[in-house]
Amino acid sequence: MQVDRRRFFLASAGLGLSTTIAPQSPTAPAVTDVTRNLARFVVSAKAADLPAAVRKEARRTVLNWMGVALGGSRHETVDNALAALSPFSGPAQASILGRKERLDIMHASLMNGISSHVLDYDDTHPKTIIHPAAPVMPAILALAEYRPISGSEFLSAFVLGVEVECRIGNMVYPKHYDVGWHITGTAGVFGAAAAAGKLLGLSEQQMIWALGLAATQPVGLQEMFGSMTKSFHPGRAAQNGLASALLAARKFTSSSQSIEAKYGWANVLSTSRDYSQLTNNLGETYEISLNTYKPFPCGIVMHPTIDGCIQLRNEYKLTADKIDRIELKVHPLVLQLTSKKAPESGLESKFSIYHAASVAIIEGAAGIKEFSDQAARNPAVVALRDRVTAIVDPNIKEDQVRVMVSLKDGRRLEKFVEHAVGSVEHPMSDSDLETKFTRLAEGVLPRDRTRRLIDLCWKVDTLKGAAELAQAATA
Amino acid sequence: MQVDRRRFFLASAGLGLSTTIAPQSPTAPAVTDVTRNLARFVVSAKAADLPAAVRKEARRTVLNWMGVALGGSRHETVDNALAALSPFSGPAQASILGRKERLDIMHASLMNGISSHVLDYDDTHPKTIIHPAAPVMPAILALAEYRPISGSEFLSAFVLGVEVECRIGNMVYPKHYDVGWHITGTAGVFGAAAAAGKLLGLSEQQMIWALGLAATQPVGLQEMFGSMTKSFHPGRAAQNGLASALLAARKFTSSSQSIEAKYGWANVLSTSRDYSQLTNNLGETYEISLNTYKPFPCGIVMHPTIDGCIQLRNEYKLTADKIDRIELKVHPLVLQLTSKKAPESGLESKFSIYHAASVAIIEGAAGIKEFSDQAARNPAVVALRDRVTAIVDPNIKEDQVRVMVSLKDGRRLEKFVEHAVGSVEHPMSDSDLETKFTRLAEGVLPRDRTRRLIDLCWKVDTLKGAAELAQAATA
Repeated sequence: MQVDRRRFFLASAGLGLSTTIAPQSPTAPAVTDVTRNLARFVVSAKAADLPAAVRKEARRTVLNWMGVALGGSRHETVDNALAALSPFSGPAQASILGRKERLDIMHASLMNGISSHVLDYDDTHPKTIIHPAAPVMPAILALAEYRPISGSEFLSAFVLGVEVECRIGNMVYPKHYDVGWHITGTAGVFGAAAAAGKLLGLSEQQMIWALGLAATQPVGLQEMFGSMTKSFHPGRAAQNGLASALLAARKFTSSSQSIEAKYGWANVLSTSRDYSQLTNNLGETYEISLNTYKPFPCGIVMHPTIDGCIQLRNEYKLTADKIDRIELKVHPLVLQLTSKKAPESGLESKFSIYHAASVAIIEGAAGIKEFSDQAARNPAVVALRDRVTAIVDPNIKEDQVRVMVSLKDGRRLEKFVEHAVGSVEHPMSDSDLETKFTRLAEGVLPRDRTRRLIDLCWKVDTLKGAAELAQAATA
Repeated sequence: MQVDRRRFFLASAGLGLSTTIAPQSPTAPAVTDVTRNLARFVVSAKAADLPAAVRKEARRTVLNWMGVALGGSRHETVDNALAALSPFSGPAQASILGRKERLDIMHASLMNGISSHVLDYDDTHPKTIIHPAAPVMPAILALAEYRPISGSEFLSAFVLGVEVECRIGNMVYPKHYDVGWHITGTAGVFGAAAAAGKLLGLSEQQMIWALGLAATQPVGLQEMFGSMTKSFHPGRAAQNGLASALLAARKFTSSSQSIEAKYGWANVLSTSRDYSQLTNNLGETYEISLNTYKPFPCGIVMHPTIDGCIQLRNEYKLTADKIDRIELKVHPLVLQLTSKKAPESGLESKFSIYHAASVAIIEGAAGIKEFSDQAARNPAVVALRDRVTAIVDPNIKEDQVRVMVSLKDGRRLEKFVEHAVGSVEHPMSDSDLETKFTRLAEGVLPRDRTRRLIDLCWKVDTLKGAAELAQAATA
């Protein structure tokens, strides 16, 4: 039998290929201390040092995340996961948002991570396409129900978790993504471990171990997109990150160079890496400041059109019966990606710029309901949709659109959108976020409780105990 | 802000880079149905079709696995994992081998996976360096305590799990290993999912989903070797594989081409792959037939020397005081990897061929105790060790050694080992395995229970309920 004996020997002795048995000759200095420097930053960071603007953006992220988690909480994906795994849950330690069940903190992290990503409607860090909150919030929210954690500690740990995962992403983006990894799961687990580890008061060495345990548990593959397993990724990342921190707290050891080692995360999971992106200016800039929120639960190339149509509708009190036709001048990607003329399902309607324009005019909104099977088949929507045309204009940028509406009375209305709502340049306002939240919570929480929860999100960092947030969000 | 819009759009719509929006031009036919064919094989396999020799080797693997799990069950690594995670365990559904605790089946899988790998003493599939039992057995043993599973079903599912993980390994070995993955964790999770899924009676579609959920949860990185996290890998693989099967049983969907898709497991986690290794001759050959067991808990290049020394000791009733010197003619790798002259700890002694020869002569054994700190510092072992020399002989093959012992009375003894014990060519006998088991169980189980457990392992496929095996192995 052909066996690679060096490999076999090392493995059989519990050692890796990179193990140096004999002293090596001098080579270029290896990258070291990357993991340690990151761990040191997280351990030594102080809540009081966070700039007010950073805390503000973090609160906006909390509000947005909570809303999408509520909106997704009754999804079949969550039902199936609960049916499969509840029999193995530990004590009722933590809340499942939008539902009555209570599970142990590991399972709660998984379920709330699934809920918050299943609608593809959560926050996005545009530089890396990471959805920052989905892997981090579930872990620390569950932990906040397990041991006393003040709102201030909670929000600070959240910011740090987001910082870690987004910097991990910055270090390897876009090559890591191009390999085929779902970066929200693979980078997110570091964020969950760091945030939970911060709240557990880990020492620098323990934080290093927690990051190592996170590194060795990357979830998942892009091939899962389009199935329930996509939203499983941030859920499992939250759960794995939380477990990593808890293990490290009990001196469960891992590597001290899990990110930068020859067979560490950055080399094994990406074809290129820039460590300076991970550790330069730590504590001076905050990635959460770049976070964005989706006003519409569909791909972003459709957002300028929806934005423009809603603006025209509201300004001119438009109704479908007044409209002769709608013409769109769009960026080339719009027709490349969303040119479906006659979508027959909610999913297909997310790939139809014609549907998007129609529903935006008719409903003045483009939320979950407006991309449902029912909306796609609504005769009024279909009738207007068939009067929408779109042509590519090379002068239109990716987050722009020119919408021209010809009315039956002969008038011609026009709206040029320079930056669609939800972009970094034109973020959703606090009020927009509240409206999005309210719509998502409809049918899940009674109205008065929705309002109370919104208020709690806005003042999360002043709460005596962050657990209040979770408990206010159960059905 | 610079954003890759196509990538961003697809991600923001919940889709992967490989998503085809518009029809593509004809290209070479893609590889398809790899995952489906594997799933179909597992679902349709019948216990009665397993050749007797395959069942026999499977029983030997069960016995070896159970012994190393008992031997590792009191290790600090297991203590720390239990301390960290027990507070989150569900109902006391399954046994922790060698201990009194009972946990839910997920946590039991994790803990027993850690125990069985922590000593680096478990079984090895030499073609891939996978340790086949460690990720599979814990999952199905826990399941057998949760629902009625006959010994025959149990052993059959075990063989199938090993078949799946080793074929996954064959498909990508050695490139996948060279990337830096710990193959026992990354391939092992497929084995656990397949074996557990078989016992849960999954349909073909459900088995496909289970394999997809396994594919998206690879554990772990070789960088963790030398820390507690190494043995965490097969434990987590067992747990993740079991969870994958349970989720799939509740219709939690994943990809249907998780192994072969462009952004599936084989492309993302390896630089080359041969799908024929995965699916050719399924049901005709069995990888477990190639399984091997380590007679000594150290790297295999030292095994010929230990084997030869023990043989000489027993044949000539050798004691250290009779010996003037020992000369070894060895393969070059022996001195490259294990030339430590004066090891000062148990760990270092695993890298000293001199220690190995000495302790084999003095103790007539080379088990856990003989590679302890105490053994490395034992004056008698040190004194003889310093009279051992080793030279490279180009005619000596990797699993060979020539041992020459010069006695103080002037006699010269010699032993040539052609194939060391534990190799495929010279496997450990059933009696060797029992002796190894008994030594590992010492101090964990009383002698009479050890004997009973050995007997249960030998007749596992005739047991009415496989749970008996687990329950007989608790402290």
